[in-house]
Amino acid sequence: MKFADFLPGQTIVHGPADVLSEEDIVAFARTYDPQWFHVDRARAAASRWQGLIASGWQTCGIAMRLAHEGALEGSESFGSPGLDYLKWLDPVRPGDALTLHAHVLEVRRSNKQPDLGILRWRWQLVNQRGAAVLETMVTSLFDLAAR
Amino acid sequence: MKFADFLPGQTIVHGPADVLSEEDIVAFARTYDPQWFHVDRARAAASRWQGLIASGWQTCGIAMRLAHEGALEGSESFGSPGLDYLKWLDPVRPGDALTLHAHVLEVRRSNKQPDLGILRWRWQLVNQRGAAVLETMVTSLFDLAAR
Repeated sequence: MKFADFLPGQTIVHGPADVLSEEDIVAFARTYDPQWFHVDRARAAASRWQGLIASGWQTCGIAMRLAHEGALEGSESFGSPGLDYLKWLDPVRPGDALTLHAHVLEVRRSNKQPDLGILRWRWQLVNQRGAAVLETMVTSLFDLAAR
Repeated sequence: MKFADFLPGQTIVHGPADVLSEEDIVAFARTYDPQWFHVDRARAAASRWQGLIASGWQTCGIAMRLAHEGALEGSESFGSPGLDYLKWLDPVRPGDALTLHAHVLEVRRSNKQPDLGILRWRWQLVNQRGAAVLETMVTSLFDLAAR
C-alpha cells in the first residue's frame, strides 16, 4: 500500500501467520525473554499457564510481520516513534493461528513538514478462537518525498 | 530479586547487553520485521538512516532480556498485562552497547487479590553514547502465593 491508500475507518485484515511451534517459542525466549513460562515446559505445565506460552515480545513480532505484509510493504514508511499503549490480553500457545486486524484511526500530513505522513492505527491480533491476544496503538511515519 | 525487594524510587541498572551484529539485526528482521531499513544494507546506507538499524521490536527484546537478568530472574513474576506507552527514541545500530535503567514507580498488592503483586516500572535503554533509544512503562505481575 501507499500512504494515500490508508483511509480513516478502514480495517485491514491480514493472516493468519505461520503458526509458532513450541520450538519457535522456546528459541525466541532463550535469546530475548528467558522467563520460565516461556522456556521450561514442565514448570509451565504445572503452573497457572498450563503449558508454555510465547513471549509477548514475540507476539509483537508476529503482529509486525503481518502489518508489513498486509499494509506497509512497498509503502513510503520509514519507521515508528512508538506506541500509545500495548496490551497482552491472552496467552499465545504453540499452534495458535494469529490474524491481524488493523484499524486506521488517523491519516495526516505534518503541519511543519508537509512531506511527512503520519498514520495512527490500532492493531489487534486475534487467534483461531476469535480471542484478541494483543492490542496496541501504533504511529507510523511516511516519507512522502521519497522516490 | 523478589517482589519485596522492589522499592518505589529505586533504579536498577543492568548491562550492557551483548552487542548486536549486523547479522543479528538482519536475521531478526527477516523473521519478524522485514522492512528495508532493517534488511537491505545498500538501501539503508543511501537513506536517512545512513545504514541498517535494528527493528524496534528487537530492541524491546534486548530490554526484556536485561530486565530478566537484572531484576525478574528468580522472582515470583508470572507475566505482564502490557505497557502504558512505548517510545523508540533513537536508532539502534550494529555494535551498539545497550544498558537498561529501570525505575520503580509503584509496588503494591491487589486489593481484590492480596496474593497478586503489581509492579509498575519505567524502562529506559541507553546506548554507549548515553542516548536513550527506548523508553516504556511496564506493568509486571507477581504471584505471592507461589512456593
